[in-house]
Amino acid sequence: MRMSELSVATGIPVATIKYYLREGLLAPGRPLGRNLADYDEGHVHRLALVRALADYGGLPIVTIRDLIGHVEGAKSSRYGLLALAQTAMTKWPAPRGGSHLAAAERLMDEMMARRGWTRSRAAHRAVRMAVGVLAVLGELGRQDMIAALDAYAAAADRIAAIDLGVLEGAVRPDASGPKDRERAVELVVVAASLGDALISALRRIAQVEQPQPLQDGQWALDPGRAV
Amino acid sequence: MRMSELSVATGIPVATIKYYLREGLLAPGRPLGRNLADYDEGHVHRLALVRALADYGGLPIVTIRDLIGHVEGAKSSRYGLLALAQTAMTKWPAPRGGSHLAAAERLMDEMMARRGWTRSRAAHRAVRMAVGVLAVLGELGRQDMIAALDAYAAAADRIAAIDLGVLEGAVRPDASGPKDRERAVELVVVAASLGDALISALRRIAQVEQPQPLQDGQWALDPGRAV
Repeated sequence: MRMSELSVATGIPVATIKYYLREGLLAPGRPLGRNLADYDEGHVHRLALVRALADYGGLPIVTIRDLIGHVEGAKSSRYGLLALAQTAMTKWPAPRGGSHLAAAERLMDEMMARRGWTRSRAAHRAVRMAVGVLAVLGELGRQDMIAALDAYAAAADRIAAIDLGVLEGAVRPDASGPKDRERAVELVVVAASLGDALISALRRIAQVEQPQPLQDGQWALDPGRAV
Repeated sequence: MRMSELSVATGIPVATIKYYLREGLLAPGRPLGRNLADYDEGHVHRLALVRALADYGGLPIVTIRDLIGHVEGAKSSRYGLLALAQTAMTKWPAPRGGSHLAAAERLMDEMMARRGWTRSRAAHRAVRMAVGVLAVLGELGRQDMIAALDAYAAAADRIAAIDLGVLEGAVRPDASGPKDRERAVELVVVAASLGDALISALRRIAQVEQPQPLQDGQWALDPGRAV
């Protein structure tokens, strides 16, 4: 298809598609002549992926380009690719110091011991991220949210079990070719960004739908005004 | 305390504190003389809140200023304040059109009916957000993630039950003064931003800790390289 048809198929303006081409987010089409190229379903799919990462992952173009690079199959191992994609996908603010950091580290350690979470190291980024959030909650005096850590971890465990079920179903045990690698990395990227967005939205809906509204609904949460 | 002490107490550079003062994110200190002011614990707390929203909510300064305005007690009702805070906290990309949108709306309707979620309207922002994610997953051919919608919704229900437990514990049934309102709105803001960040981090840790790693851990997810 021509670029104008690609624009119609994806709902993305021609100017934006040209920008993605210049930035290397989209492979050039098959040349048909001067200023004319042919695009296919691969381009439609790639554009959908780029928009998903921008809209729901909230990722800047430079991060999306890095991720696309991984999806296109760098030479690192599959494990390394997944780790890289996972790391690149997540915002990792450095934990701020302060008097609450040590207490947060201890709380996290104790919770992980209680759950039998033994593979994650204190130095791992996701653990640092959780510790950082706990330290800030301590700073803000939110002992009530900190006290709910084990309950939130149990809920996260359920989500992760669903995630892994999806991943196991999607990746063949004998997967090894470049197409398999691309598919696996793309799934991790999509699951991390769109999964977080989906859970965040469902959490807001579920808050409203809880069976025990507070005080005649006066304190009940709102799922957002109608658009 | 003087501004230099406020900087030490919060770990935030003096230049950044001055920027927050100029932008109206922080109330001026009590004047002690020319170019000299006194700051108190209220300022420490406010700075912690601003940094939490910036670091973990990923919010721009202008949004934080709007939220701070709500926390400071606009004239709207408590319900209205909570709704505003909740709405401002969440990124809401407009659902993109395309052939997958109608299918996504139907899937969402059906899931909500199965769960007995009857209070949320199709026009509510959180519902639109979930529909948008489902439509994009459809575009990307991720039927496997779409098939997990009910399971993710059940997990979100658990998280929301924890959220509401925290909120009920924090807000007295007879709460009505401006301090109560501030406390409630701040909790909603903190729970939305830091809660999402905490769940996202715990989800990544829990993925690694799932009892059935894939294929000798080759496809296992990594919680992020050591920092």
